[in-house]
Amino acid sequence: MSLVVQKYGGSSVADASALKRVARRVADTVKAGNDVVVTVSAMGDTTDELISLANAITAAPDAREMDILLTAGERISMALLAMAIHAEGVPAQAFTGPQAGVITTEHHGRARIIDVAPGRLEKAIAEGKVAIVAGFQGLHPETQDVTTLGRGGSDTTAVALAAALRADVCEIYTDVDGVFTADPRIVPQARKLAHITYEEMLDMAASGAKVLMPRCVEYARRYNVPIHVRSSFSGLEGTWVVSDTEEGDPMEDPIIAGVAHDRSEAKITVIGIPDVPGTAARLFEAVARADVNIDMIVQNVSATATGLTDISFTLPATRIDDAIAAISGDHDGIGYADLVTDSSIGKVSLIGAGMRSNAGVSAKFFAALRDAGVNIEMISTSDIRISVVTRADKVDEAVRAVHTAFDLDSTEGEAVVYGGTGR
Amino acid sequence: MSLVVQKYGGSSVADASALKRVARRVADTVKAGNDVVVTVSAMGDTTDELISLANAITAAPDAREMDILLTAGERISMALLAMAIHAEGVPAQAFTGPQAGVITTEHHGRARIIDVAPGRLEKAIAEGKVAIVAGFQGLHPETQDVTTLGRGGSDTTAVALAAALRADVCEIYTDVDGVFTADPRIVPQARKLAHITYEEMLDMAASGAKVLMPRCVEYARRYNVPIHVRSSFSGLEGTWVVSDTEEGDPMEDPIIAGVAHDRSEAKITVIGIPDVPGTAARLFEAVARADVNIDMIVQNVSATATGLTDISFTLPATRIDDAIAAISGDHDGIGYADLVTDSSIGKVSLIGAGMRSNAGVSAKFFAALRDAGVNIEMISTSDIRISVVTRADKVDEAVRAVHTAFDLDSTEGEAVVYGGTGR
Repeated sequence: MSLVVQKYGGSSVADASALKRVARRVADTVKAGNDVVVTVSAMGDTTDELISLANAITAAPDAREMDILLTAGERISMALLAMAIHAEGVPAQAFTGPQAGVITTEHHGRARIIDVAPGRLEKAIAEGKVAIVAGFQGLHPETQDVTTLGRGGSDTTAVALAAALRADVCEIYTDVDGVFTADPRIVPQARKLAHITYEEMLDMAASGAKVLMPRCVEYARRYNVPIHVRSSFSGLEGTWVVSDTEEGDPMEDPIIAGVAHDRSEAKITVIGIPDVPGTAARLFEAVARADVNIDMIVQNVSATATGLTDISFTLPATRIDDAIAAISGDHDGIGYADLVTDSSIGKVSLIGAGMRSNAGVSAKFFAALRDAGVNIEMISTSDIRISVVTRADKVDEAVRAVHTAFDLDSTEGEAVVYGGTGR
Repeated sequence: MSLVVQKYGGSSVADASALKRVARRVADTVKAGNDVVVTVSAMGDTTDELISLANAITAAPDAREMDILLTAGERISMALLAMAIHAEGVPAQAFTGPQAGVITTEHHGRARIIDVAPGRLEKAIAEGKVAIVAGFQGLHPETQDVTTLGRGGSDTTAVALAAALRADVCEIYTDVDGVFTADPRIVPQARKLAHITYEEMLDMAASGAKVLMPRCVEYARRYNVPIHVRSSFSGLEGTWVVSDTEEGDPMEDPIIAGVAHDRSEAKITVIGIPDVPGTAARLFEAVARADVNIDMIVQNVSATATGLTDISFTLPATRIDDAIAAISGDHDGIGYADLVTDSSIGKVSLIGAGMRSNAGVSAKFFAALRDAGVNIEMISTSDIRISVVTRADKVDEAVRAVHTAFDLDSTEGEAVVYGGTGR
């Protein structure tokens, strides 16, 4: 008998018929001889509707009360799912995050899980019940207040429960069939990956693949929880996210896992800053105080005549105003001449653990971009990833060119049923 | 400085602008120098919508999961109200029933409050905050599960908190101006009562006046909590519900508090049952096993020739099928000839503590009904109430006739702003 943790997102539980379909899948998993723990998100647009209500009350809702408000969403879906599973003749019991023993930091709206005390869940499982757990939420023990985990929180809840319960697998159900070699909306020949390593998945997620959030993959890697990403609408096998040692010989693996892209970033160039020690530190300290995450950084070769240089960096486009305000606020300290922003950029990344042991990957990547007429503005690399920044309107072409160059295009003429790797 | 507990019903918090109005009233009460605890119901039709969702999933939702589902409603309204009060510049903190220390029995959907441990509320008050508490819900300590209190639960929450915190007053805000001498939709000359005793209010509520539920009044009487029923839409003084000793000399009080009516009951007549000891017990034991509450009972004078008699009783019309099934199920044991049901009845009641010391009240009541041509089918009395059952279509006429006969009609030509004592 296996212990299976299943996670269903908002689109999988959008209405009564969707909830009933999920309940049947849970019941089938139980009838196949498994113990099942289910993590569930809020139904469809519930979270957005609750946020709208809060914004109708006040422009600056308190974080503590916002978390109380938002956790009502999973409360509704978990109760309804328990009813639907009962209606399938299978015993089930619903638990809030606090009841399930999900212990978090105190940061309302973006809390991190620090421990899981799954005593009540273990008791329910021992009694032969399906345990249903509200995703996205936990308890801060000192204040005894409910917290929410922020983006990707429900996936992380599922992985954290799987780790604490030593589950055999954490199944993440979504509206796509798995992880693809590229976004099928851009590359119709993209193939579904049978498996991918945690490291590759982390780099895919950080590079724009939206099927899983980096924090969830990071948690799974730390506790070695096998993740199975699959569709709640089809019965197909999806993509397994696992450590690179457990799925056969890594040398047998393909060199490249996939091509990811991201159009959600913007670029800031700080022009004419003194090329002396400490200037870059002062610049990025200002940005860090505004709680803005930086992605790529490029510093120009200094013009020796003037002793001045330029620094460009990329960041989420939504945070550009905050970053500009932070840098402007320390204008005298940083001592720059001008700030230039650019929101029309895109990032294309090639990810594959096989890069480590295969020479020539970078050369082939840049050649493919050159042949497609794509100009490169910034470059960043890790041991299993190469990323470039280019014009936003060149991204689709770049992704297709790289996908073809690395022989990732499907030769089997498989129909790709779902429209994207992103939600 | 006074401690004021305020309760706002669903119509008072139906949308964002209603919530903001409530927040201003709370802020005004704080600025007038009071400590304030607020109990809030779910917004508008939220509870009905959640019940519909559950019914779309299954015809027989589990009571435990139903309570988890329904408590999401108050969770939303309490969080939004806290935000709205903050926006008025007043510190506030929202608490679920369990967080507020509301301890209940384990009966999901109809739990009773058995204790209130208001430590967290007292701490919030001591810190100068408005404490907002979700009405209608509590915690069963052994299962650690949330429970709901059933009909009238939010009013009862408010009174229970007022008792535990030794509040100076429990203000119940509603969509009418207070308790009236009759339903103003039927009697336009009905007057708002300045005060009414717990006992009179209990009999008014039990006789069909919907402004307060009997269980809330009963709780207030037991702990001697003064209730102030008033409108959340006007600034008017409402009706005080108090013990009869604290508002001056009871002999000065008017003899009659008001005329109540109820069209929600039905009548069952059990025909031809043996007039021997134990038959009535057997009949009503069957009804009690179906958990049906009986109101009035009349047994005919026995026809000595046959040794058989008839028994009529009234009950909520919604429970008539359950009662018939229960009685039919013990047909042989009770030994009756036939069952007759009647759903076209109405009840008219005259309530007043002054009846105790004033002769002739019954005579005047029956004379008024006779002069209005209203036929009486059943009669029931207590020391402060007379009730009669009549045809449903004669109720309005009966209420008006009695109201006039006891000089309850307003002579001041006051405009009655709101449409009824019921919701």
